[in-house]
Amino acid sequence: MMYGVIMAGGSGTRFWPESRKRKPKQLLSIAGEKTMIRATVERIEPVIPFDRIMVITGGLHAAEIKAQLPELRDEMVVVEPFGRNTAACIALAAFKLQRMDPYAVMVVLPADHLIGKEQEFLAALQTAVEVVSQRDCLLTFGVIPSRPEIGYGYIKLGEAQNTPGSTKIHPVERFVEKPDLETAKMYMSSGQYLWNSGMFLWKVESIIRAFDEHLPEISSSMRSLQGAFDTPDEPERIRETYEKIESVSIDYGIMEKASNVLCLPVDVDWNDVGSWVSLEDVWESDKAGNAGLGDVVILDSTGCIVSSTRKLTALVGVEDLIVVDTPDALLICKKDRAQDVKKLHQLLKDQGLEHLL
Amino acid sequence: MMYGVIMAGGSGTRFWPESRKRKPKQLLSIAGEKTMIRATVERIEPVIPFDRIMVITGGLHAAEIKAQLPELRDEMVVVEPFGRNTAACIALAAFKLQRMDPYAVMVVLPADHLIGKEQEFLAALQTAVEVVSQRDCLLTFGVIPSRPEIGYGYIKLGEAQNTPGSTKIHPVERFVEKPDLETAKMYMSSGQYLWNSGMFLWKVESIIRAFDEHLPEISSSMRSLQGAFDTPDEPERIRETYEKIESVSIDYGIMEKASNVLCLPVDVDWNDVGSWVSLEDVWESDKAGNAGLGDVVILDSTGCIVSSTRKLTALVGVEDLIVVDTPDALLICKKDRAQDVKKLHQLLKDQGLEHLL
Repeated sequence: MMYGVIMAGGSGTRFWPESRKRKPKQLLSIAGEKTMIRATVERIEPVIPFDRIMVITGGLHAAEIKAQLPELRDEMVVVEPFGRNTAACIALAAFKLQRMDPYAVMVVLPADHLIGKEQEFLAALQTAVEVVSQRDCLLTFGVIPSRPEIGYGYIKLGEAQNTPGSTKIHPVERFVEKPDLETAKMYMSSGQYLWNSGMFLWKVESIIRAFDEHLPEISSSMRSLQGAFDTPDEPERIRETYEKIESVSIDYGIMEKASNVLCLPVDVDWNDVGSWVSLEDVWESDKAGNAGLGDVVILDSTGCIVSSTRKLTALVGVEDLIVVDTPDALLICKKDRAQDVKKLHQLLKDQGLEHLL
Repeated sequence: MMYGVIMAGGSGTRFWPESRKRKPKQLLSIAGEKTMIRATVERIEPVIPFDRIMVITGGLHAAEIKAQLPELRDEMVVVEPFGRNTAACIALAAFKLQRMDPYAVMVVLPADHLIGKEQEFLAALQTAVEVVSQRDCLLTFGVIPSRPEIGYGYIKLGEAQNTPGSTKIHPVERFVEKPDLETAKMYMSSGQYLWNSGMFLWKVESIIRAFDEHLPEISSSMRSLQGAFDTPDEPERIRETYEKIESVSIDYGIMEKASNVLCLPVDVDWNDVGSWVSLEDVWESDKAGNAGLGDVVILDSTGCIVSSTRKLTALVGVEDLIVVDTPDALLICKKDRAQDVKKLHQLLKDQGLEHLL
């Protein structure tokens, strides 16, 4: 059986002031009518019904997630006591699923991404399930680049293998870091590099075998936890386990080391929604490249991104700004500094304004 | 006796969105705790008591002015049916004052300027009164420039004459238009050019004589109105008069033509508050030259002007912006486009957003 595992532990600090500690971006509807986590779940629901979808999140957000996704089974909203990076999160999900269904196949998805071509994505899921059902492998979805993006990591493909359908699947030669622009252009024209989307699909037994081999301490800690799943002891036992295990990403801890990693290229209009700038591709734009949510009056301004649904915003003679208006905080940020919005957190703390985080 | 005439007909469109049709900038406290018109009246009150201060304004603002200045006599809040430029406004005041006191001396002040050095200004008023009491002349206050400003008109001085005190007074050689930067620098270094402040002082009989000579139609229309002042007919008679008289500025209609114009140089830290940029000199600035009203958190940003008293504003990597937040409209404008804020009015009208004006 196929299960969905939604990683919803993100804090979304780069989406301040719209996103706050208690309401990170995956719980907001900044990119459409639905909240991002609800959209993520509904997107896969045609192939994975609600009762086989698990969400891993922090304690601050579990209640809101249950409210936004009342169809989920209670025991499938799993609370991490604190973030311990993606390897711990995925191990927790895998061992919990193994206990429910030793033959489970799991797709791992972040809660805060967008996919424009939903049908193509569902078709890719089906292909991926067929691939992993036939061999012991770890499948990662690689997004075919649509531009020389410097903000993503890339996957370098090896020689294509045939899949059950017509789609090609590739062994992964290596994972590469975010490139500079020159390199990103080369990556794009070569056709050998795909965006590392952080979406995975594998048999639970395959990923557990990989944990056994590459992260044996996480593996044995999580295995000893299995008896406590779905008992009153679960939260406390997870806390104890999390306190002693390593904080490492699934990419670094497993994917870059395992020899059975395969990459399925997908062309699904994927957007990682990494900062306000990524919404430029999502929101409607005018001819001068201004994109926005809300009423905006524009005089001689170009390339701006405006989120202001509660009042009129007027722009005069400005360019490449991000403007985000909320009831208690207003952000104005140069577009090329979108990554630095998270730096405001320390500044706000220093000024005793933690209530605005 | 000395009377104050405050011209409060301005619409303050360049201070949108803080200023609105019903609340133009002179009725706001954007530059201090008091509203600008209240500050203007209180500034002269040590030498001109409330009962000798007249305000000329539009019908939309008379009630608010009476509320802000309850000490004024009712008949001293004079309503123009519509704006007819400064010559009409000053003629109306002069003829109304003449009926009350044929020997009146009147100082004419805009309602929306700032003066930092109040004692120096009051001393200049006294000097000016002594000058005009001894001769038939039209006195204009010229502000000694503190920077090569290209946004003001200038007054070119003639040879100094002695005043009753030690201050020099000058005949005006000519009034000159707003200069370019090179010319403004030359003006400043020459010492012969002062800023045209639009503040005047004269005997009522002198300005009426000047109207008789240079704007005889305005003069005769206003003179025929005198019988109606302080009667129930006053508003309707003013309307009839305004409908037929010429719209001309006092500078163009009289000051540039009269031969008896004198200029008193003053150094009083004057600010015409012509646009948001002018508040840069009024509000406190940080080391990076950001000036603001309200809570602002700043990361790598310089030269910004922020008016946001209702919420926190965060700036990241931006420069030379004007940011004005109000409950129903937010303005973000490049500083060198501050004059173009008034252009938003047509845009807002075109978009059916007239209620925000």
